[in-house]
Amino acid sequence: MRLMSGFEALRARMQELSHLDAILGLLSWDEETYAPPGGRASRGEHTATLEGIKHNKLSDPALGELIEAHLEDSAISIDERTMVARLKRTRDLAVKVPEPLVKALAAARSKSVDNWAKARSEDDYSRFAPHLQEVLGLTRERAQALGDGRPAYDALLDEFEPNATVAQLRPVFSQLRQELVPLLQEIVEAPNQPDVQFLKQSFEPSAQWDFTMTLLKDLGFDFENGRQDKSTHPFTGGAGPKDVRLTTRIEAHNPFNAIFSTIHECGHGLYEQGFDPAHFGTPLAAAPSMGIHESQSRLWENQVGRSRQFWQAYLPVLRTYFPKQLEGVDVDTFHRAVNHVRPSLIRTESDEVTYNLHILLRFELEQALLSGDLSVPDLPGAWRERMTADLGVEVPSDREGCLQDIHWAFGAIGYFPTYTLGNLFSAQIMAAYEREHPDVWQDISNKHFGPLLSWLRSSIHRRGYTDYAADIVQDVVGAPLSVTPFIDYLKGRFLPLYGR
Amino acid sequence: MRLMSGFEALRARMQELSHLDAILGLLSWDEETYAPPGGRASRGEHTATLEGIKHNKLSDPALGELIEAHLEDSAISIDERTMVARLKRTRDLAVKVPEPLVKALAAARSKSVDNWAKARSEDDYSRFAPHLQEVLGLTRERAQALGDGRPAYDALLDEFEPNATVAQLRPVFSQLRQELVPLLQEIVEAPNQPDVQFLKQSFEPSAQWDFTMTLLKDLGFDFENGRQDKSTHPFTGGAGPKDVRLTTRIEAHNPFNAIFSTIHECGHGLYEQGFDPAHFGTPLAAAPSMGIHESQSRLWENQVGRSRQFWQAYLPVLRTYFPKQLEGVDVDTFHRAVNHVRPSLIRTESDEVTYNLHILLRFELEQALLSGDLSVPDLPGAWRERMTADLGVEVPSDREGCLQDIHWAFGAIGYFPTYTLGNLFSAQIMAAYEREHPDVWQDISNKHFGPLLSWLRSSIHRRGYTDYAADIVQDVVGAPLSVTPFIDYLKGRFLPLYGR
Repeated sequence: MRLMSGFEALRARMQELSHLDAILGLLSWDEETYAPPGGRASRGEHTATLEGIKHNKLSDPALGELIEAHLEDSAISIDERTMVARLKRTRDLAVKVPEPLVKALAAARSKSVDNWAKARSEDDYSRFAPHLQEVLGLTRERAQALGDGRPAYDALLDEFEPNATVAQLRPVFSQLRQELVPLLQEIVEAPNQPDVQFLKQSFEPSAQWDFTMTLLKDLGFDFENGRQDKSTHPFTGGAGPKDVRLTTRIEAHNPFNAIFSTIHECGHGLYEQGFDPAHFGTPLAAAPSMGIHESQSRLWENQVGRSRQFWQAYLPVLRTYFPKQLEGVDVDTFHRAVNHVRPSLIRTESDEVTYNLHILLRFELEQALLSGDLSVPDLPGAWRERMTADLGVEVPSDREGCLQDIHWAFGAIGYFPTYTLGNLFSAQIMAAYEREHPDVWQDISNKHFGPLLSWLRSSIHRRGYTDYAADIVQDVVGAPLSVTPFIDYLKGRFLPLYGR
Repeated sequence: MRLMSGFEALRARMQELSHLDAILGLLSWDEETYAPPGGRASRGEHTATLEGIKHNKLSDPALGELIEAHLEDSAISIDERTMVARLKRTRDLAVKVPEPLVKALAAARSKSVDNWAKARSEDDYSRFAPHLQEVLGLTRERAQALGDGRPAYDALLDEFEPNATVAQLRPVFSQLRQELVPLLQEIVEAPNQPDVQFLKQSFEPSAQWDFTMTLLKDLGFDFENGRQDKSTHPFTGGAGPKDVRLTTRIEAHNPFNAIFSTIHECGHGLYEQGFDPAHFGTPLAAAPSMGIHESQSRLWENQVGRSRQFWQAYLPVLRTYFPKQLEGVDVDTFHRAVNHVRPSLIRTESDEVTYNLHILLRFELEQALLSGDLSVPDLPGAWRERMTADLGVEVPSDREGCLQDIHWAFGAIGYFPTYTLGNLFSAQIMAAYEREHPDVWQDISNKHFGPLLSWLRSSIHRRGYTDYAADIVQDVVGAPLSVTPFIDYLKGRFLPLYGR
C-alpha cells in the first residue's frame, strides 16, 4: 500500500469535508420539501451531530498542519495552492470562535428564531426584543473573535462576501440610494401605470408547475444533475454540483411568484452545475461570494426574465397553459405587469427599483445595531422613519416592518448587502456581455440562451472560487464594483415603460 | 459545566451513532426515490464517507472501554444494560473484520453487483461466476473473522437473525418442505382454479396510488411521522422512528403489485413507528431480527391483507376507483384471484404456498456454496434440479434461475432464511392473537384494525430489541419457532379456496 503524499492527504480531507457538506445540503433540502412533521423535528438533532463531526474535522490540528505545510508549496499547482488557501479560510472561521461561544450562540439563535416567529405572527416586537439583544451581544463577541482587529461589521460581512468592507461599500451604496430615490419618485408619479387586472384571476397550480419546468429546460438547467420541487420558501440546495435541487413556490392567485422564483433559482442552479469538474470535492467548486452567486440568479430573473424579448418568446407559451386568463393580454401589457413598480412594505415582494432601498435600510440599521448606536428598543421607530424617507410608505405594524425578515433573529448580520451586490454585479456582467454580443436580445427573443450561458460558464461558473469576487468582476467587466450599469439598466427598462 | 457520567457519555455516543444511521437511511431513501442520475452516481462516495466515519466511531477504543465498563453496571437499569450489550454486538461486528478484508470485500461486491446485473440482463452466468467466486472466498474469510469458532454459515446468519443456527433451522425448514410439496401438489391439481381474467386490464396508476394511501391511513400508518413514495423496488427506510419512509411500485397492468407491496411495507413501517420513544436514539429502538421484522410485514400483507374479510371491506372501496375493471367481480372471485397459487420461476412474484420453497432452495444452496460442497460452476445445474423437484417447473434460463436475486452478488449469505422465519413467525403471532381475540375477523371486515395494531404494539413493537427474537416469540406465542401454525393457516385458507 502506497503512502499518501502530504497534499494527497490534504485533498482526501477536502473531499471528506465536501461530502459532509453535500450530505448536510441534502438533509436541509429534504427538511424543506418532503420530510414529515416528525422527521423535521428530529432532523435538527441529526444535522447538529453532523455539523459537530464536520467541526471536529475542520478544527483537527493535523488539518491545520497540513494546510500550513502546503500554503506555499511550490510542488503543487496554483489551483491546488488556492484550494489550500480557501480551506484555511473555512478552517479559521471554524477554530477562531471559542466552543462555548458557538454553543451559546446556537442556543440563543434557536430561542430567538422561535420567538421571532411568534412575535411576527402576533405583531409583538417586545416579545422578540430581548432575544435580539442577546443574539446581538453574542454576535458582537463572535465578530471580535473572527476580527483580527477588523471592525466588527467587516468581520461578519467577510463570511458572506470575502474581502468586502463597509469602507468600500458605503460610498457605493450611498450613490445607489441617491440615484434610486428620485428615480422611484419619477416612476411613482408617472400617469402611465401598468394594467395588472388580468393577474387577479386563478392560475391552475399544476399548469404553473408545467410552465416552470418548460422554462428550466429551455434555460439549460440540467435534469441529469438536478431537479425541481416545491417548498414554502424557494431555494437552491442539494448535494453538490451533480445534484442541484431547486425549489419553487406556487400560488394560484400570483403566477409571477412561481415563474420568477423558478428563473431566479435556475440562475443559482446553472452556476452550481457549471463549476469545473476538476474542482469537484474541493473548496474551488464554490462561489467566491454570496454577491456573485446572487448576480447569477438576478441576471436570469431580471435582466433576462423580465425583458420584453423574453416575454415575446414566452407569452405565447404561457398562453397555451392559460388561454382564458390571458385572453386579450398582449406582450406590452404583460411586460409592463411583470415590471410593476410600487413602493411596498415587504422586501421579498418588492420590485427591482425599490428592492435595493429595502436592503440599504437594513444595511444601515444592522451596522447601527451592531455598534450599539441604535438600541434594540429603538429599532421599530428607526425602521418606520427610514421607510417613509426612502420609500414614502407608512409602516402600519412591526410585523410588516422590522419583524419581516428572519436574518437578524439568527444573527446573520452582514448578509443583506450581498443581495444588493448581486444586483449591481448582475447589471455589470450583463452590460459586459451585451457589449461583446449585441445580438443578445435577438437570441433571447428566439429562446436561444446557449450563447449567454456558455459565456457565463467560461467567464464565471467554471472559475468557481479560484479568485475572489472583486477579481472576477474586474476580469469579466473590466471595471470594479459600480452603480452605473445598474442605474442605466433600470432607467433603460423602466422609464420607457412608464412613458418617461 | 457538569461532567458526564460514564453511562451518559456512552449514551451520547449511542445517540450519535443512531443519528448517523438515520442520515444513512435518508441518503439511501433519496437515492431510490428522488435523486437525479448524477446525484445517484455521486451518492456512493458520500455514503462511503459517512460509513467510514461511523466505522471509526464504532471501532474507537474509548467506546470499547465504555462498553466494557457498563456491561454489568448495576447502577444502571436493565434496559440500559441491554443497550450496552446490543451496542457491543454492533461494535464487535465492526471491529472483528480486519480493515483490509472490509475494503477488499467492498471492492469485490461492487464489481460483482455490476457484473451480476449485466450477466442477468444478458443471461450469461459465466460473466458472473468469477465474481461470485471471489465474493464467496472473501465472505468465507469474513465469516471466519466473525466466527469465534462457530460454523461459517452460523456466523453470517447471526448478523441478520441473532442467535439463530443451522442446527436449529434445518429440522424446522425440512419439516416445512415436507408439508409444502404435497400441499402445493394438491392445490395445483385442483380442478377449481381461480378466474384472474379481470386482472388483464389497465388500472390507472394515480387511482392505484390513491387507493394505497387510503389503505395506509386505515391501517394506522402515521403520516405525521412517515410518508409513502414510489421506487423501482418497494422498501421501508427513512431516518428513524419519527420519519419512516415507505415506497411502493405501481404497474398499470398489475394492481396487486402496488396494493400488496403497500400493505407489506406498511407492516414494516408500523413496526418502526411503534418502538418505545424512551428507546429512540439507542440500540433498543430496533427489531431483534430480520425475521421478526418480516413477520410484521407478512402478517399485514398476508394474514390480514389476503383474507376474505379484508376484501369484503375493501373491494367496494377499490371498485370506486375502478368501476369498469371490477364490473361483475364479486368478493369471492376477487379473493380467489388474490390467492392465486401457481408454481413459478421468480421468488418475488410467487404466492404464499410456493414462496418458502424458493427460500428453502436458496438456504440449501448458499450453505453448499459457502462450504464448497457446491462449486460455483455447478450452481445453475443444482438450481434447475431443485426447482424441478420442489416446484415442478423447468428453468428455461439462468436469468430466471440462479441469477434472479441480487443477494449473493454482494455476499449477503444467511439473509434468505429470515424471509421464511418471517412467514413462520407471522402465522404463529396471528394464531396467538386469534386465540385471545376471536372477533379479529369481524374487526377486519369492519376495517377495525386498531385492536390488532395495539396488541402488536404492546407485545412486539414497543419491546424493540430489549429481547432476542426467540424470547419475544416464546412470550407472545407461548411456544418456540414452529411450522404448524403456518401450515394450518395455509391449509385453512387455500384448501377451501381450491375446493379441497
